[in-house]
Amino acid sequence: MKNSFGNSINITLFGESHGSAVGAVLDGFAPGIAVDEGFIASQMQLRQGLDSISTKRREKDKVQILSGVFNGKTTGTPITFLIENSAQKSSDYNENRLFARPSHADYTAHCKYHGFEDYRGGGHFSGRLTAPIVAAGALALSALKKKGIYIGTHILECATVRDDAFHDYASNIAFLESAPMPILNAGVSAQVQQIIEKAAAVGDSVGGILETAVIGMPAGVGEPFFDSLESALSHAMFSIPAVKGIEFGMGFEIAKSLGSKVNDALDVENGKVVTATNNNGGINGGISNGMPILFRTAVKPTPSIFKEQQSVNLKTGEKIRFTIKGRHDPAIVHRAKAVQDALTALTLCDMLALRFGTDFLAM
Amino acid sequence: MKNSFGNSINITLFGESHGSAVGAVLDGFAPGIAVDEGFIASQMQLRQGLDSISTKRREKDKVQILSGVFNGKTTGTPITFLIENSAQKSSDYNENRLFARPSHADYTAHCKYHGFEDYRGGGHFSGRLTAPIVAAGALALSALKKKGIYIGTHILECATVRDDAFHDYASNIAFLESAPMPILNAGVSAQVQQIIEKAAAVGDSVGGILETAVIGMPAGVGEPFFDSLESALSHAMFSIPAVKGIEFGMGFEIAKSLGSKVNDALDVENGKVVTATNNNGGINGGISNGMPILFRTAVKPTPSIFKEQQSVNLKTGEKIRFTIKGRHDPAIVHRAKAVQDALTALTLCDMLALRFGTDFLAM
Amino acid sequence: MKNSFGNSINITLFGESHGSAVGAVLDGFAPGIAVDEGFIASQMQLRQGLDSISTKRREKDKVQILSGVFNGKTTGTPITFLIENSAQKSSDYNENRLFARPSHADYTAHCKYHGFEDYRGGGHFSGRLTAPIVAAGALALSALKKKGIYIGTHILECATVRDDAFHDYASNIAFLESAPMPILNAGVSAQVQQIIEKAAAVGDSVGGILETAVIGMPAGVGEPFFDSLESALSHAMFSIPAVKGIEFGMGFEIAKSLGSKVNDALDVENGKVVTATNNNGGINGGISNGMPILFRTAVKPTPSIFKEQQSVNLKTGEKIRFTIKGRHDPAIVHRAKAVQDALTALTLCDMLALRFGTDFLAM
Amino acid sequence: MKNSFGNSINITLFGESHGSAVGAVLDGFAPGIAVDEGFIASQMQLRQGLDSISTKRREKDKVQILSGVFNGKTTGTPITFLIENSAQKSSDYNENRLFARPSHADYTAHCKYHGFEDYRGGGHFSGRLTAPIVAAGALALSALKKKGIYIGTHILECATVRDDAFHDYASNIAFLESAPMPILNAGVSAQVQQIIEKAAAVGDSVGGILETAVIGMPAGVGEPFFDSLESALSHAMFSIPAVKGIEFGMGFEIAKSLGSKVNDALDVENGKVVTATNNNGGINGGISNGMPILFRTAVKPTPSIFKEQQSVNLKTGEKIRFTIKGRHDPAIVHRAKAVQDALTALTLCDMLALRFGTDFLAM
Repeated sequence: MKNSFGNSINITLFGESHGSAVGAVLDGFAPGIAVDEGFIASQMQLRQGLDSISTKRREKDKVQILSGVFNGKTTGTPITFLIENSAQKSSDYNENRLFARPSHADYTAHCKYHGFEDYRGGGHFSGRLTAPIVAAGALALSALKKKGIYIGTHILECATVRDDAFHDYASNIAFLESAPMPILNAGVSAQVQQIIEKAAAVGDSVGGILETAVIGMPAGVGEPFFDSLESALSHAMFSIPAVKGIEFGMGFEIAKSLGSKVNDALDVENGKVVTATNNNGGINGGISNGMPILFRTAVKPTPSIFKEQQSVNLKTGEKIRFTIKGRHDPAIVHRAKAVQDALTALTLCDMLALRFGTDFLAM
Repeated sequence: MKNSFGNSINITLFGESHGSAVGAVLDGFAPGIAVDEGFIASQMQLRQGLDSISTKRREKDKVQILSGVFNGKTTGTPITFLIENSAQKSSDYNENRLFARPSHADYTAHCKYHGFEDYRGGGHFSGRLTAPIVAAGALALSALKKKGIYIGTHILECATVRDDAFHDYASNIAFLESAPMPILNAGVSAQVQQIIEKAAAVGDSVGGILETAVIGMPAGVGEPFFDSLESALSHAMFSIPAVKGIEFGMGFEIAKSLGSKVNDALDVENGKVVTATNNNGGINGGISNGMPILFRTAVKPTPSIFKEQQSVNLKTGEKIRFTIKGRHDPAIVHRAKAVQDALTALTLCDMLALRFGTDFLAM
Repeated sequence: MKNSFGNSINITLFGESHGSAVGAVLDGFAPGIAVDEGFIASQMQLRQGLDSISTKRREKDKVQILSGVFNGKTTGTPITFLIENSAQKSSDYNENRLFARPSHADYTAHCKYHGFEDYRGGGHFSGRLTAPIVAAGALALSALKKKGIYIGTHILECATVRDDAFHDYASNIAFLESAPMPILNAGVSAQVQQIIEKAAAVGDSVGGILETAVIGMPAGVGEPFFDSLESALSHAMFSIPAVKGIEFGMGFEIAKSLGSKVNDALDVENGKVVTATNNNGGINGGISNGMPILFRTAVKPTPSIFKEQQSVNLKTGEKIRFTIKGRHDPAIVHRAKAVQDALTALTLCDMLALRFGTDFLAM
Repeated sequence: MKNSFGNSINITLFGESHGSAVGAVLDGFAPGIAVDEGFIASQMQLRQGLDSISTKRREKDKVQILSGVFNGKTTGTPITFLIENSAQKSSDYNENRLFARPSHADYTAHCKYHGFEDYRGGGHFSGRLTAPIVAAGALALSALKKKGIYIGTHILECATVRDDAFHDYASNIAFLESAPMPILNAGVSAQVQQIIEKAAAVGDSVGGILETAVIGMPAGVGEPFFDSLESALSHAMFSIPAVKGIEFGMGFEIAKSLGSKVNDALDVENGKVVTATNNNGGINGGISNGMPILFRTAVKPTPSIFKEQQSVNLKTGEKIRFTIKGRHDPAIVHRAKAVQDALTALTLCDMLALRFGTDFLAM
């Protein structure tokens, strides 16, 4: 459904980078859930990223809730999140009208919308659109926590550096919820910041691999054949601008292994069925098996770099060389983490509601 | 929508491995498209795989079309594909009732369906369900070819062996359309068959990485924010049992690179905008850019191996050790190729219809 | 979604009047529900109508269940109903190719499908497509009964004759479940049969008004703003070929009344909130209020009459006069009753599942 | 999809009567369509109704467009309409917390949302939610007019008074577009205003029957079996608070007629297929036939009357008697007209886009 995602619970997204506002409508969400504005603000802050390595466009990103909340609790009717755009400097983008920035959506949007698209700052395709996703996702994260379901994401890889694997899910996830830099190992965190700063210094950019873990998910959730948990989660994750890959459990490595080495033997622990290993990332046949859900996404380096590049003048059709202006991040992987948490939460809320009803999260 | 996929054009899947039949209903497909039963049969044959390395369950897989075709052409109303199950030997599976096969959907389906699921041969979660997908996909492939859009998939990696990359899209795709083994390099093909046979000999299994290319796709197709081409394609691909990862263009590698190394410079060739490299796999901002669409999926080794494994008796909750019986493939990656082509075709038909209307394919 | 209806629980319809079969796939239906084949057959029989006043095309309409049922119970995966076409006499329809029967879908289907439609017997637009709806609906009716929800439909009006209103919902509905003619008053029933026979005798046809009551529906079900119970039920009912109107509660009469005369005062009865009158037909603001749901549909006279009519030759574009051949009902209102019950049941199951989860009906 | 309606083109609604704002997101709408703010304002004005007979709550209803419009034209991405609530007087409603107003959604919302609903002024179920529908619909009406499709609605009946039937569609529709009172016959218009004023004088309310005509709709549009034009339009119309019935063409009258009297003979006029009569209201088999689409809705009298009524205290469960306070319309039928036009336009845009693609309206 284009700018809507989800079935029983769905989110509809709107806005452009340099329009008056960006926002989202969250529908189907259970009534009676307390809205923790502090938690929403903290998630928005994580999406802003560290000052030292993030965009110079620093908006306050104050989230207004226009509907669906009454006396501090959700009403069960659509919840609208609105974030005004206050710091846009459109003049920076005026000349972008003429050429398509490489690896951005400029050319493809031009083809799709016949030149009527709002091209300023990427318009509707800007990473700014992820702000209302994070706001809505914060509510979903809160609701899931009440049901004992916790979600956390860290940067597993950046350039040649690799973070520790999740080793103690509960405490790792708790740590990540408030860590300014989403990396488990402090030494790695410092290295990654240096890598980003170094790229920024030469007008370049870096990407990274994000890893998400979900614990507490009950077994038996997912709607295959086509709405498997993997299908639903990947559908959501590829909405994050810059994501170019996703893998569950062992992912691409499992494809190179022998069945006998990677099958997850079933076991019983305290009367509960578990698997001895978790190579399938908590999902079998598209349905949760009660083990931690584990997946990784590939986030490409920000395409906005400050080196001269080759492109095409969309008006004349001529080849040109130019250098991007404006304020751009040398990396977004550390900021995308908050978006990945948000979309994971929204997807799981929807899947739980399909199985157990829209009231489930409220009870 | 659970067992339905697609918007303007959608497919609904039904059946179980050991029920009377499996099938699919394809809705929204344009009228007036000639149904090439020979081509459908050839795709079904590719899904069957080579005799030497495939399941001993050899069904004729005769595709009956129950509706939606009149005088050899589509009518525009729902097309129903039915494939009767003829070679099932349920006795092999009777004891599966008691335990969940590791890395299969047995345990998760049991949780979701409270024990009422048809457990025989994996029931609704069997790879057999992909047969009607291939039948429906053959029709989609035919229609796309008429519009100059071609799709091909090969095994890029299996164990330690790697096929050639796509080097001449048009001829590579034409070759793959009828190759009994979907591998571009004949030497690699022989090696992969040996790897599979070797695994089979010891009761083990292997997986692999499938790579799909699409050429001829017009620029400007895709429905972001949430229904990007990547979201739609990944949603479809994770429906293939055993797929645990997907990546577009450079995929996970792009995450480790510098922006300046991987941005796809725009160029003009014969008056048409192209990119100098194709690290984004033909998609920017979720919309096709006219370059070849390129993605890879990770197919895990068949979880049905003939070595003793540990599991749990679902009735008593006790840990058990057992060995799977029945007829199982030592690999399905070479067979999954036909499914990947089919789902790619169905997804693209839907995306084209959203943009250009359901009549588009007919014209 | 064209030939699919419903959200959490949905039905997908396929087939043509003179193709090999008609059928439906029911998805999202809870596992563990016993399939009562006798009840399905009895509903199919009601749809066939009385011998004396129904079509001469008497098919056995044997319902095959191809998937989704195991050991006599639903599995939770798609349930496929297939009814083979055995008694079609296509030769009767051959000349229909040339002209569009007035008030049928012949001309409009021709416009929509560019002449590729299966025109025989109305093709996909034949009333025959309602057979699998009745089969699927029988399952929904059974499941609702287990939850204390009962549905019944009678012919309220036919020509100048009017049946008794529902007076004792429970017993009236029980009576209608097995009445060969869906009319509460025996005298009226005889009159209606005479009216139909009389019309048949002169090659003419009649319509009628169907009234449906639902009791036992819990308060609080419905998904406004857009998926109100009225929206969902009307959406379903207008799928019945020949339905041209629907009204809830007092319906069109309420529009002519004063608010003070028709507001339903709230009352308390045995600790339960009820309304003193039920002019709103059990629905306020699109949500059930716990009172009987009551609505009426207008079923037009069968457009297939045996009098000479004026039409157009679709090939030449010339005006023609002709007389329809074939076997046609002088009325379908008494047969549409079973379809109306079925679609009501399917719609309510879906609405209940949205609110309470897909497991709700199973518990 | 609860608060979303439509497929290729869809609208998502949010807000409450006494919250900060009401609004809508329109997605899938073609790029390049000029936004006529004057026309939007004029439609908003028609929804406000005549001063003399409408609510004393007179908001300016200034429509802000937050996204999706750039340089005065649609961009193809989501268009957000926001209307701030400025004149709410919540104090009037405080005591409504305790009791459910008869024939309103108060009790049913209470059941559905467990008491967390925003009860002030009907909250999400208020007629105020129709304001953003009218804003979005104005854009749809504009786009349709460019394609030669015109929509008009008048009050056909109010109490005992009846307006002229549509007699010259084009000029009648043009007249209704700017008529302060949507009635074709000036004498009837005066009578209806008197009826409403008279009811108001005694604290009572009236309803009415709205009739809508659509001209210029091409033949061949509609998506049966389940998404017939009648299903789609009725689904939309029952979203209008107070609508309790809908009928197409002859509607309920056709059910009482003989087939030979009401079949619409096909004819040829200037080389175009037409029907001699239009008893089916421009739709056969759920697909447009090129004739005017004609339907009527039943709008019940406003349930907010100023006479003492019986209700129930939702907290204590006791029966009570009370009199509604606040500012309420003695009739909304004349205001609902603008909503009916808007939803008709949105529904038809969606159906046209399904058939011809989302670009259709732009071309």
